[in-house]
Amino acid sequence: MTIGVLGGGQLGRMIALAGYPLGLRFLFVDPSEDPCAGRVAPVVKQHYMDAQGVQERLRQLQVVTYEFENVDADSPWLAGDVDVYPPVEALRVTQDRLLEKRCFRELGIETPTFTPVDSDSELQGSLSRIGLPCVLKTRRFGYDGKGQSVIRTVDDAAEIEIHAACILESFVQFDRELSIIAVRGKNGETAFYPLVENEHRNGILYKSISPSPNVSKSVQSLAEDYARRVMEKLDYVGVLAIEFFQYGERLLANEMAPRVHNSGHFSIEGSDTSQFENHLRAITGLPLGSTGERGLSCMINLVGSIPDIDKVLAIPGAHLHLYDKEPRPGRKVGHITVVSDSRETLELTVSQVEALVG
Amino acid sequence: MTIGVLGGGQLGRMIALAGYPLGLRFLFVDPSEDPCAGRVAPVVKQHYMDAQGVQERLRQLQVVTYEFENVDADSPWLAGDVDVYPPVEALRVTQDRLLEKRCFRELGIETPTFTPVDSDSELQGSLSRIGLPCVLKTRRFGYDGKGQSVIRTVDDAAEIEIHAACILESFVQFDRELSIIAVRGKNGETAFYPLVENEHRNGILYKSISPSPNVSKSVQSLAEDYARRVMEKLDYVGVLAIEFFQYGERLLANEMAPRVHNSGHFSIEGSDTSQFENHLRAITGLPLGSTGERGLSCMINLVGSIPDIDKVLAIPGAHLHLYDKEPRPGRKVGHITVVSDSRETLELTVSQVEALVG
Repeated sequence: MTIGVLGGGQLGRMIALAGYPLGLRFLFVDPSEDPCAGRVAPVVKQHYMDAQGVQERLRQLQVVTYEFENVDADSPWLAGDVDVYPPVEALRVTQDRLLEKRCFRELGIETPTFTPVDSDSELQGSLSRIGLPCVLKTRRFGYDGKGQSVIRTVDDAAEIEIHAACILESFVQFDRELSIIAVRGKNGETAFYPLVENEHRNGILYKSISPSPNVSKSVQSLAEDYARRVMEKLDYVGVLAIEFFQYGERLLANEMAPRVHNSGHFSIEGSDTSQFENHLRAITGLPLGSTGERGLSCMINLVGSIPDIDKVLAIPGAHLHLYDKEPRPGRKVGHITVVSDSRETLELTVSQVEALVG
Repeated sequence: MTIGVLGGGQLGRMIALAGYPLGLRFLFVDPSEDPCAGRVAPVVKQHYMDAQGVQERLRQLQVVTYEFENVDADSPWLAGDVDVYPPVEALRVTQDRLLEKRCFRELGIETPTFTPVDSDSELQGSLSRIGLPCVLKTRRFGYDGKGQSVIRTVDDAAEIEIHAACILESFVQFDRELSIIAVRGKNGETAFYPLVENEHRNGILYKSISPSPNVSKSVQSLAEDYARRVMEKLDYVGVLAIEFFQYGERLLANEMAPRVHNSGHFSIEGSDTSQFENHLRAITGLPLGSTGERGLSCMINLVGSIPDIDKVLAIPGAHLHLYDKEPRPGRKVGHITVVSDSRETLELTVSQVEALVG
């Protein structure tokens, strides 16, 4: 079976590496020069909206998926006779922050207060409704904190020029950010990984601890319930990630991604079945694998540079994942997952890794 | 860094899958049509003795290794300015059963009694020295029981025609077969996986249990000591596998392989660092990874056919590894590794898997 994957970045690369042992083959589509999934599988270098040769390629594929939610939902790759998972509707909803937040609200899932803002004049009117501080985000094409501005004062707002459809959200005073990786099969079967605690730096995920410390059973259940509502509503198939702000026992949905997610990378070593394998099992109609924990784990992103890998690999319990990407400031070039049976050893090992990652 | 790998079978394929997260790239060399490593990395389709273009290719490589010990040691791929690990001398010794057995003996490692036999007339004379029953094996190109004949009676011997250099070995009454996967770095650092218990069917490895049940510390130490002697003698770098016949507290070396080994596949899920990753760490001069156990594991080979993978994947704790090879009788097309924290669950799960593998 050959699976078409739109997007040839590290998520696609790790999907392929997880899929080969299942006997699967891959074809990536990516318009960029030398995408890192291209080291491990064939790539069609083509813009997602370019229809040239697509029908012919689709005939060689059994399923199409995506590792990247900013693919236009009208792409010809998604409009053929080949099954697309997660469904295109999930892509439409999750690639637009306004539709996404409305979807959460319709399903009774708490979110920060929000309102659409399409022009500078609308912004002024919306400020009083949402209150300060607040965050202005472009509805589309945002990732890793890009396309976001925090507004703390009326003067901050006055300096902003709006060039694209936006959403204005209240700035939530949260205890921490948690995320859940959920998966749903073609037969409606679901599975959930334990909530992960995320720490960001400069708007980019820096560290994820799994399972998150100090999560009550009721918060884990709430997160699973929220994810299940979204997946059932969207008739979802594949891995879905939802990021929450935790505030006491409450979870406010911040955003979701219709794909494998950076905060789920721990699962390669830290779970019985990785998020990548479970995504593939789901979209190919295979039974889902156990999401049970294999020890405690912590994932640390390598952003902008690669530490001395000789030193990293000398740390027992540290697992290196490089994406074979040229380091550039702000670019995710790999991650390190530490797995341990005790919280103490985990923390000690993580501090050794962090000393190298700097 | 790009690593050249001679042989593009499943071992090479799994080497590449383990190497991508280390940021490594691969180039395979294989004369056969559509080798399975070719699904995951580029392949040069060329006979190992064909020098055409080899020097040019070698300039793109930083290290050359092999997944297959029947490559001629005089191959131009092994004679360039590029480091070859394990060293070519190890290849010469291990691809010839006579040199291999002599190497064991020189190092004080017990083996079955043996003698070289090059002709029908020599065979008759050797029979009385070795005794019945005994096994006649070709010195080279044997694998999975191929090139071997058991001689139980003088009449059996009379029917044999010798066409290639052979070795006659006494047929050892052993308790069981154990193997050890050892690894040695460029700096002489060594690491050892726990002894594995192997069960063969029709001369092909069927099942490996790791760690092997009922192995005393002294037997584990003896195996490590034997492996260390061989690796130091050969100035070895990479993974080395040695198969032993166990007889009480004694280990008789049967054969060794200068490469990752089928009986080490359990290490993908069952060890902190897989044999594939440790082989790559060794040959690229990186520190070796922990060979510590992650639970108890059992690997079952898929030979000749693939069971219903839907059913396999529905078994919690079963990990599927398909090689993307066309099933043919006697051909290894994949393996399943079961990992568990208790012996009871392991055995129960293995029996579920075996019922499907048939």
